[in-house]
Amino acid sequence: MSGDVDPPQDTRLGEFELIERFFSRVPRPDRPDVLLGVGDDAALISVPPNTDLVAAVDTLVAGRHFPHDCAPRSIGHRALAVNLSDIAAMGATPAWATLALTLPSAAAAWLEGFAAGLMELADAHGVSLVGGDTTAGPLTISVQILGHVAAGTALRRSGARAGDWLAVTGTLGDSGAALALATGRLATQDVAAAAAVMQRFDYPSPRVQFGAAARGLASAAMDVSDGLVGDLPKLAAASGLAAEVDVDCLPLSAALQTLVPLQQARQWALAAGDDYELLLAVPPQHWLALCDAARRLDLNLTRIGELCPGNGVRWTKSGAAFAAPAHGYDHFH
Amino acid sequence: MSGDVDPPQDTRLGEFELIERFFSRVPRPDRPDVLLGVGDDAALISVPPNTDLVAAVDTLVAGRHFPHDCAPRSIGHRALAVNLSDIAAMGATPAWATLALTLPSAAAAWLEGFAAGLMELADAHGVSLVGGDTTAGPLTISVQILGHVAAGTALRRSGARAGDWLAVTGTLGDSGAALALATGRLATQDVAAAAAVMQRFDYPSPRVQFGAAARGLASAAMDVSDGLVGDLPKLAAASGLAAEVDVDCLPLSAALQTLVPLQQARQWALAAGDDYELLLAVPPQHWLALCDAARRLDLNLTRIGELCPGNGVRWTKSGAAFAAPAHGYDHFH
Repeated sequence: MSGDVDPPQDTRLGEFELIERFFSRVPRPDRPDVLLGVGDDAALISVPPNTDLVAAVDTLVAGRHFPHDCAPRSIGHRALAVNLSDIAAMGATPAWATLALTLPSAAAAWLEGFAAGLMELADAHGVSLVGGDTTAGPLTISVQILGHVAAGTALRRSGARAGDWLAVTGTLGDSGAALALATGRLATQDVAAAAAVMQRFDYPSPRVQFGAAARGLASAAMDVSDGLVGDLPKLAAASGLAAEVDVDCLPLSAALQTLVPLQQARQWALAAGDDYELLLAVPPQHWLALCDAARRLDLNLTRIGELCPGNGVRWTKSGAAFAAPAHGYDHFH
Repeated sequence: MSGDVDPPQDTRLGEFELIERFFSRVPRPDRPDVLLGVGDDAALISVPPNTDLVAAVDTLVAGRHFPHDCAPRSIGHRALAVNLSDIAAMGATPAWATLALTLPSAAAAWLEGFAAGLMELADAHGVSLVGGDTTAGPLTISVQILGHVAAGTALRRSGARAGDWLAVTGTLGDSGAALALATGRLATQDVAAAAAVMQRFDYPSPRVQFGAAARGLASAAMDVSDGLVGDLPKLAAASGLAAEVDVDCLPLSAALQTLVPLQQARQWALAAGDDYELLLAVPPQHWLALCDAARRLDLNLTRIGELCPGNGVRWTKSGAAFAAPAHGYDHFH
């Protein structure tokens, strides 16, 4: 990082000044339910009546969850996006967030980019940053997101029943290609396809609106952050069921299919992670209504399999057993 | 750190297993208002009706907020204590927390100590750990604490009025002595006094019960984490007032006065930080009632000055101006 601001000699005195300078909006996008935002010992929030509060936290570490030379705007976007994806998986409405930002130096240019990426996405989802803590140290970003959902209606991983269909939003595997491009394991002359998958990786779109629309239709949901081979077993186990998936049905983007052979694309779709799509269990009688909801949001929704009694996940291809790859989350080191 | 658990090769797959293993209780201390805790994409919480939600986040970085060789139990205690202190400053009741833990390796012995320190304090305050994220990287701990307070009754920094008295709980400066001992800048033969100030530093006691008792009595409050010279100006500015403090009135522990000359003790009380006491503005007519509340909790409460029209802080000693030290937060590097 470079810039014209001195490193924070004191890690606490500067916290509010940093937050105020880079993460405030004039006029503030603060919601009327934010009774007290950044600047006191804690924030005060009025949670809407008859709702359940939804809380999640995710941390990004430089060199692990993004390359050290990643654009700061992308890091800011991603830090909030991965949390919004958790809120989406509950069918909830995101509302408030806090930011714990540990950074080696308070470089103005870096912070401006980071804040722009985070705040643009926050504004797009009506999220108010209500608090934060800035400390000096190795670049680490934790966002805690708070949201709300009508009492008793949140989607959980555990609600699926035998016979429910399995579906995923959007496309899978693009981030695997982006990681391969970023780390030099994949080269291409197809600039447009490369840009498409890099955009998917650098600026993931959490499926917040669709998650909310799926309440009352889907029986269970979670976000796909570790690849289907990492995540689907968790949903199946939480619901006490087995899952069967036809890998021929996995939704693959045109860009991904342009960049690599189908077999590689499928491997990434299964195991690469970082897609931030939603995995849903859907009672068949709700399928058409859920497809309508996806269509209204211009979002792909693809049936990939179903849930049945038992446990574990069975991967198939043309009706035969398919050897799915082991979980293969990539790190930048 | 050392231990017998392999470093987490994958930073996400292991998160729930780590959290479940080290941060769960059997039987769980989960509150009935925790509808869904660790193990889904997000936690679900039922916030009591007619309350405001209170949210704060604080980060601890190894080598900056605690020595690299600090006992893991102390780190776990401190990570929650600094957040509880923020809740105390609002007069609120802590209830739920999330933990973002970045650590170089998942050493079982270290995690056991860390979790013990954190969970003992959580249990003591009825706090339920509802979520977390564990990642591999340089040791960094962010706790986000959530609490609640009867709607409209939270203490803020901005509520003080001219004529209000200034008071602090407990004693100030002990952590300054502890830091000096830990970093070799101070040596002593007085083992008991050294142990007393180290205990204050390693296991700070957030003033949660007193903060709640001060609601309706104090007009403003904040916690003293950066030393009075760092914190008092913030309370005065937030209330649009000037403050005057008699440094002869600063409460100093017997251990601190045993370890160093009065002048040094006073310097640490003003500028060393890490005391996690409460600073309060108190209308004189509420003083006796607030003293009663402190007495019931076996807690010192000391009047140190007052607020008046104007701005800035005037430090006095025997009626004359006193040159307070600059903010002097110590780091371990």
